[in-house]
Amino acid sequence: MSRIDAQLAFLIEADKLKTVLRGTTLCDGARRENSGEHSWHIALYALVMAEHANRPVNIDRVIKMLLIHDIVEIDAGDNPIHGDHDPAEQDIIEKAAADRIFGLLPADQAQSLRALWDEFEAAETDDAIFAKSIDRVQPVISNLETGGGTWPAYNVTAAQLQSRVGVKVERGAPAIWSALRTRIDAWFAQHTG
Amino acid sequence: MSRIDAQLAFLIEADKLKTVLRGTTLCDGARRENSGEHSWHIALYALVMAEHANRPVNIDRVIKMLLIHDIVEIDAGDNPIHGDHDPAEQDIIEKAAADRIFGLLPADQAQSLRALWDEFEAAETDDAIFAKSIDRVQPVISNLETGGGTWPAYNVTAAQLQSRVGVKVERGAPAIWSALRTRIDAWFAQHTG
Repeated sequence: MSRIDAQLAFLIEADKLKTVLRGTTLCDGARRENSGEHSWHIALYALVMAEHANRPVNIDRVIKMLLIHDIVEIDAGDNPIHGDHDPAEQDIIEKAAADRIFGLLPADQAQSLRALWDEFEAAETDDAIFAKSIDRVQPVISNLETGGGTWPAYNVTAAQLQSRVGVKVERGAPAIWSALRTRIDAWFAQHTG
Repeated sequence: MSRIDAQLAFLIEADKLKTVLRGTTLCDGARRENSGEHSWHIALYALVMAEHANRPVNIDRVIKMLLIHDIVEIDAGDNPIHGDHDPAEQDIIEKAAADRIFGLLPADQAQSLRALWDEFEAAETDDAIFAKSIDRVQPVISNLETGGGTWPAYNVTAAQLQSRVGVKVERGAPAIWSALRTRIDAWFAQHTG
């Protein structure tokens, strides 16, 4: 198989990410967001909000990470952060998905994109930590824009939002979380007793 | 307004790109593609197919261009390449859209992203030419994956596909067009007399 044919096989497979539905909706609440358009949106978030990374990042690498970060969901599905899934089991499924999907590419590209995905998943480098922060910010905005979004359905408390989301956003982009806290606190003050 | 608030206003507005429907469908033909997920997909195309640019490009700039290239469609809508719209009128509408939408950002970012969008539109630099080529490739793949896709509806001939699409892909990525021609020729040989 030629390099272009292998690349096209990967890109055609990637199209399926547009059919993986996430827990959160669009900002107008009309329908659930899919993981393809989510990946575009957070790459744009990273591009625009790079200055708020708390440590120096290579924003070009961050954007590439975000473009591929969810591609394993084609096989593994999306797991809402406030849902209940077994992280260890999910990890095995996602690694198998990464083997299969990145494996469609020519070997050198399969290896480099897989390494970038592994780095994102490990969340240890500054680039990956910031990428993870951005990935967590966008659904919060969607929820705030849609009157709480999925928070009421999952009975999320302000403390849970802080421990599941806030801590991760603060790790890479504390200034963004600080700005959101005003909006979040206002929502919880209004909607919980 | 703080920088973060202005950035969030832009990013929330950008969410609307997920509701702009394009002429082409997903590769499974189940529904029309939206311009948000299209933007993700072609950024991924560029990342994977950078080696096929016929002149040296800065792939990081190309990816950024592709992330923002369609954002004006929030106001201006999508114009299928095989449809009939007035290019001069469309140009005025899109420039006004760019003024409004990039204008939501802090002034320095509004200026830099607008300059990147203008560069893409002008299609004169190597980066923009390659970005335009990639933008033209992805719908062809979608049409090939769905038995011709929109070509029959628009009565597209092989010659029209070459003049409207092929010439533009060849300008930045001739190797990709050459690889697609085999698939395209086979389709037209089968479906037209």
